[in-house]
Amino acid sequence: MRKEYLLTPGPTPVPPQALLAMAQPMIHHRTPQFMEILKEVVEGLKYVLRTKGDVFIFASSGTGAMEASVSNLLSPKDKVLVINAGKFGERFADIAKAYGAEVILLDVPYGEAVSPQVVEERLAKEKDIKAVYSTLCETSTGVVHDIKSLGEVVSKTQAALIVDTISGLGPCDFRMDEWSVDVAVCGSQKGLMVPPGLAFIAISPKAWKLAEASKLPKYYFDFKMAKAAMDKNDTPFTPAVSLVIGLRESLKVLKEEGLDATLMRHKKLAGAVRAAAIALGLELFAKSASSNAVTAIKAPAGIDSEKIVKLLRDKYGVWIAGGQAQMKGKVFRIAHMGYMAEPDMLIAVSSLEMVLAELDYKFERGVGVKAAEEVLSK
Amino acid sequence: MRKEYLLTPGPTPVPPQALLAMAQPMIHHRTPQFMEILKEVVEGLKYVLRTKGDVFIFASSGTGAMEASVSNLLSPKDKVLVINAGKFGERFADIAKAYGAEVILLDVPYGEAVSPQVVEERLAKEKDIKAVYSTLCETSTGVVHDIKSLGEVVSKTQAALIVDTISGLGPCDFRMDEWSVDVAVCGSQKGLMVPPGLAFIAISPKAWKLAEASKLPKYYFDFKMAKAAMDKNDTPFTPAVSLVIGLRESLKVLKEEGLDATLMRHKKLAGAVRAAAIALGLELFAKSASSNAVTAIKAPAGIDSEKIVKLLRDKYGVWIAGGQAQMKGKVFRIAHMGYMAEPDMLIAVSSLEMVLAELDYKFERGVGVKAAEEVLSK
Repeated sequence: MRKEYLLTPGPTPVPPQALLAMAQPMIHHRTPQFMEILKEVVEGLKYVLRTKGDVFIFASSGTGAMEASVSNLLSPKDKVLVINAGKFGERFADIAKAYGAEVILLDVPYGEAVSPQVVEERLAKEKDIKAVYSTLCETSTGVVHDIKSLGEVVSKTQAALIVDTISGLGPCDFRMDEWSVDVAVCGSQKGLMVPPGLAFIAISPKAWKLAEASKLPKYYFDFKMAKAAMDKNDTPFTPAVSLVIGLRESLKVLKEEGLDATLMRHKKLAGAVRAAAIALGLELFAKSASSNAVTAIKAPAGIDSEKIVKLLRDKYGVWIAGGQAQMKGKVFRIAHMGYMAEPDMLIAVSSLEMVLAELDYKFERGVGVKAAEEVLSK
Repeated sequence: MRKEYLLTPGPTPVPPQALLAMAQPMIHHRTPQFMEILKEVVEGLKYVLRTKGDVFIFASSGTGAMEASVSNLLSPKDKVLVINAGKFGERFADIAKAYGAEVILLDVPYGEAVSPQVVEERLAKEKDIKAVYSTLCETSTGVVHDIKSLGEVVSKTQAALIVDTISGLGPCDFRMDEWSVDVAVCGSQKGLMVPPGLAFIAISPKAWKLAEASKLPKYYFDFKMAKAAMDKNDTPFTPAVSLVIGLRESLKVLKEEGLDATLMRHKKLAGAVRAAAIALGLELFAKSASSNAVTAIKAPAGIDSEKIVKLLRDKYGVWIAGGQAQMKGKVFRIAHMGYMAEPDMLIAVSSLEMVLAELDYKFERGVGVKAAEEVLSK
């Protein structure tokens, strides 16, 4: 008998009420029935993003919405600052380059958070920077950036602040309007607890001004077409109907818990995993600013992290993630985002102990679980 | 008690085995488990498209793949010929214009199919045309174009032939390789019987040559990134996992029936609806070349087609579609694509009779159903 336990940083487990809602017979989208659902979902997204601005839903992965935040805001040769502290920072740079922007890379060592002061200095030196691209939680390293301080810095300039909140939204504190974020990019399969296939964009008035002036080509991800449709509770192109219906259920779960409680739950789960890792003598990849969404842990010397991931999945049905790009083989990542509760962390830590023992890593069995229990009991 | 009957030209009903597969707990995509599924689904799509070429899956609506067929093949100011015989032909033109192509519109009166000879003449006159864009089935009018003849004409030139098969694939005959089609664009929510949110692209060697030379910006829909990933049974960005899993089930249904039998079934269902419409004294919007996927019927004089659609949905739970763009209010459309069988057509025709009677249209009750039955009994 196989039983699976999903602890990856996206896709994440989907609440059963959302799964069942998505298994309902299909309905058509250009109808009062679906428009009502769309309206409710957009309101729910505004609640989670803490914004009163426009929010659009695309049928795409999060990367599609990242691209939208480039193609809708920029014109060829525009100068942009990209904070590069992991795989998803890199992706923003790749997209901006693909669209002919002039990219200034602000390299931050992987595992560290960006310094808002360095961004401020850079913006003071290069006043023609049009946009600053950052992630909230860098899923590849488990680091969360200080978006509040970045917002203070960027909002004083002409530049717009674009934040990839794909893995951070829900687990990590995020306040779009209060923090002066201009574009938030989000996806469905992380803290929002639905399968992948939906992306979201939230847009501030400052970002709209850039969008008005943008000369890059776009169509499927065009903000103006999305706005014209969304003002009528519609989408310009066929939406991913079943996923939107699932999202309605997941948003209900989040609303019922309340954003502050959601944040505290994730903080506790993250703390338990980190305490366990340290008790097991392992090193966290994030030097500081650890994210509530995912913890990246360095594999012990001499052990390939891919081996840990594979053994956990194949032998125990526990799905965690390995390292991405330059971190492949070096780190493994345990997610604590979305539809996750305390026992899930005990599954993660105890099965990790079993696998580490099998791989001949020397430690005292049970110390990881003990440390996790202590955090969860507080 | 409300019971719903979905007879719209996308989304279409989803077989229960696909609905239930999509309600399974989520799995992670960068795993042997999902890669196996992806491989099976791509093979299934090649079977349906009748191609040995590359096939990619995007998390997006069909329009995203239409855009991909522009941004990946063209360079700025490239000349393209767009066959404009309905809303979806128009969309190709809009996308190509958004990307700075020089668009030659070949206007075909709505309700008619394009003449391959006219395309041939145009290509002979303007030898620098890089690509010809056509639909297979124009969902907005219910007309199917003669792609086989178009392929013969276009394949003799340097131009690539791009075909939007979104609503036609399955119900209408389509043979990508045999007919020399260079790019086929497809979506999940029509003849492929899954919810909207997946788009597919199939690419010929001739199209790859254009893609190699293309200078338009792209990222999310980049063919080269898709190819590099798909060669390893992977996707460049997070795929819409649950929809792909649903598609596996729907493709099994199609494979079990067999493409020729699928085609014959749709032909019979379409014939029944058309016979019923004519028996009811109504006029078909398509003058000839009626599609097996959807039938567009003109509303009787003095009756707004939107009224027919609304009454059918609100009173009987029967969901059909109205007219799009310039056809709004004038036509209504009954779909017979995908997971549809003979009794579904009798539901459509008999409930249409009830609504027409309520709207004081003069006809003999039962004549529509009689005509449909006669076709279905053959």
